[in-house]
Amino acid sequence: MFKKILIANRGEIALRVIRTCKEMGIKTVAVYSTADAESLHVRFADEAVCIGPPPSNLSYLKISNIIAAAEITNADAIHPGYGFLSENAKFSKICAEHDIKFIGASPDMIDKMGDKATAKATMRAAGVPCVPGSEGILESYEEAEKIANDMGYPVMLKATAGGGGKGMRAVWKKEDLQKAWESARQEAGAAFGNDGMYMEKLIEEPRHIEIQIVGDSSGKACHLSERDCSVQRRHQKLTEETPSPFMTDKLRKQMGDAAVKAAEYIKYEGAGTVEFLVDKHRNFYFMEMNTRIQVEHPITEQVIDYDLIREQILVAAGVPISGKNYEPQLHSIECRINAEDPYHDFRPSPGKITNLHAPGGHGVRIDTHVYSGYVIPPNYDSMIAKLITTAQTREEAISKMRRALDEFVIEGVKTTIPFHRQLMDEPDYVAGNYTTKFMESFKMKPRE
Amino acid sequence: MFKKILIANRGEIALRVIRTCKEMGIKTVAVYSTADAESLHVRFADEAVCIGPPPSNLSYLKISNIIAAAEITNADAIHPGYGFLSENAKFSKICAEHDIKFIGASPDMIDKMGDKATAKATMRAAGVPCVPGSEGILESYEEAEKIANDMGYPVMLKATAGGGGKGMRAVWKKEDLQKAWESARQEAGAAFGNDGMYMEKLIEEPRHIEIQIVGDSSGKACHLSERDCSVQRRHQKLTEETPSPFMTDKLRKQMGDAAVKAAEYIKYEGAGTVEFLVDKHRNFYFMEMNTRIQVEHPITEQVIDYDLIREQILVAAGVPISGKNYEPQLHSIECRINAEDPYHDFRPSPGKITNLHAPGGHGVRIDTHVYSGYVIPPNYDSMIAKLITTAQTREEAISKMRRALDEFVIEGVKTTIPFHRQLMDEPDYVAGNYTTKFMESFKMKPRE
Repeated sequence: MFKKILIANRGEIALRVIRTCKEMGIKTVAVYSTADAESLHVRFADEAVCIGPPPSNLSYLKISNIIAAAEITNADAIHPGYGFLSENAKFSKICAEHDIKFIGASPDMIDKMGDKATAKATMRAAGVPCVPGSEGILESYEEAEKIANDMGYPVMLKATAGGGGKGMRAVWKKEDLQKAWESARQEAGAAFGNDGMYMEKLIEEPRHIEIQIVGDSSGKACHLSERDCSVQRRHQKLTEETPSPFMTDKLRKQMGDAAVKAAEYIKYEGAGTVEFLVDKHRNFYFMEMNTRIQVEHPITEQVIDYDLIREQILVAAGVPISGKNYEPQLHSIECRINAEDPYHDFRPSPGKITNLHAPGGHGVRIDTHVYSGYVIPPNYDSMIAKLITTAQTREEAISKMRRALDEFVIEGVKTTIPFHRQLMDEPDYVAGNYTTKFMESFKMKPRE
Repeated sequence: MFKKILIANRGEIALRVIRTCKEMGIKTVAVYSTADAESLHVRFADEAVCIGPPPSNLSYLKISNIIAAAEITNADAIHPGYGFLSENAKFSKICAEHDIKFIGASPDMIDKMGDKATAKATMRAAGVPCVPGSEGILESYEEAEKIANDMGYPVMLKATAGGGGKGMRAVWKKEDLQKAWESARQEAGAAFGNDGMYMEKLIEEPRHIEIQIVGDSSGKACHLSERDCSVQRRHQKLTEETPSPFMTDKLRKQMGDAAVKAAEYIKYEGAGTVEFLVDKHRNFYFMEMNTRIQVEHPITEQVIDYDLIREQILVAAGVPISGKNYEPQLHSIECRINAEDPYHDFRPSPGKITNLHAPGGHGVRIDTHVYSGYVIPPNYDSMIAKLITTAQTREEAISKMRRALDEFVIEGVKTTIPFHRQLMDEPDYVAGNYTTKFMESFKMKPRE
């Protein structure tokens, strides 16, 4: 087992990794930027090394400084957390060259999954469903018609040079294709001087549902069920839950099998997440694979009663996985508490936390690096805490989240607590009736 | 279901009950003494009524004030928590007379289990093993000899007027009985002017292991496995765990069956705890039954993934229990954090908490009513928080407790955090090798 792990990250995920290392009896090294000197990850690690000032390219992204910190502290492994260098093939490679175990994917694996086109081609080869469509630019209207007939309506026509919805048409039935084809080409030609078009299956009422997988060095993988992350704002997840209220036993088996197939096809080692789009008919399509721990991993931990960071460390040390797929027995929800003002378009609200009281009790978990007196630097991600509730049923997990949010006091900065509190009362959320479009029509109610 | 519950208690248990009520959509009324005006249970309840000053006989024990508070707020039920009026038959009766549901045992049940002699007689009648011994005073040496032979050695001779170990003799074999009998009588006669003796089986290496039970109005009961509460100081529990490291599947079945038999014999309604002494041969003997929620109930909740306060409320409202006995899959430990100085004989340390940072993350639960700036009044119990860790194995739960205790910051008052931190490293504790005598030889190591 590793003797000392350097955590190449900050904030709650750095603290999260330190906690598990402590529980495993592994020494820890924190690295920090000058803006993070007062952060808890610095305080709770066994050693801490300053690796430069913000912005991140001078510190948390500066590979040479991080490798130097690992070498001077004799760390034998690096945990990259999420973001920053967690999916950087070059960093993974340099760690290996320095005989430091990178607790994450191999450079080759990161390359394979990091580029969307390569990832999709790999997944197609593995037999995992991807969003169907034309292979590149459509040569003619006849080709467009043939492909649309083959994959079925509705379809999406998209300008290859497109952006901002220009040269884009949703086509719901065969009779409308020709007209859409002509008008989209015309529009694209006028807007971009390029009327090249491609076609994709239109995903109706899309949900973002991802499958947590773990693979080991023997090439074996298993899945730990799904997380529904459809509540997003500008592709930023706001709240996640497991199981998905949209899930069925049959769909879970299909998606779980597909994710395990994907992982085993590429001989994936470690914890990873296969993200899918699921349409209203419960067809699912590979979106991307994240070769790292996810922000929302705690909800999976809560319902399986084990520690995913521990699993990552064990797998990196060569310990085989149990290989058992997980069937959910409990329900868990995570709310990301961001220092943002939900009443003003979620604008960031850095500054000093003048008072903090966290909720507790039955079924409540909190992961945070902040405390009363902590100054949130303006340089980083605005997430300051993850509030997680777990219960026997979804209804109870929501009730628990309501009361936990009511107890949560953070003063001095604006936070997304009022957003989550309102969300937990929204009829569509409570009914589990939401897609990735949910936030487009969401509005904060005036403050009481 | 109840519309509004008054919580006739203070501190963490009042907050604990409020939390569950909120999650169930039931309104809450807090009562508080003038010393507790700044407590969280007052802040988080829907309504709060001051019921008088300390000491408790002027407020938390003053039945008339509590009933008046329930009447003016239209509460239709009262949850008594633990301590105070939770096992007061008169209070239970007065609630019933005022048409307020007492969420606890009936007056009759409290009477039956409140008096130790009555409780033991009832349990004997139910076929639950009690510590064997003479029925009252021994008439002669011959009777003493016969009883000792019947129940087997070792036995304990005790002076009926005794106290402080005077007139008390442990007798390990037959040959020593006569000498012990004579010397104990002589000593008792000299000390108390009364040489009456009785005899009990001597419990070797006793452990305090209790079984959580739940019964409903149909007379059906089930058990939720055990809690080992052997780490005690002057009969005050300091830390508890489930499962007991001393437990076997066979013993759990025997003790569980006995506890369920006891509950069903008396048609027990609600959550209760049957406390046993277990000797080194895994014989177990009924000690007493608590007809209320216990301080240490969270460790049971953690391993069964459900809410015992909710269960109490449901049963009180007439909802039948599932009736399934529980077999432990996880391990959970609770440390009671008291405002006491473990370096000075655990003397109380009331005062202002100037800084508080609670641990969090995977497998950590905290139940507390205090916060940064809270003033611990000198009038009440010194417990200020319960720190609970849960994991797949005992070893992991201990590791988790170590790191959680390391993260726990409470400044301004002395606490038992250093005691628990040392305990988690004591070889005998780590080996699960402890009895109720454990604390007699425990010494705090000098501070680093």
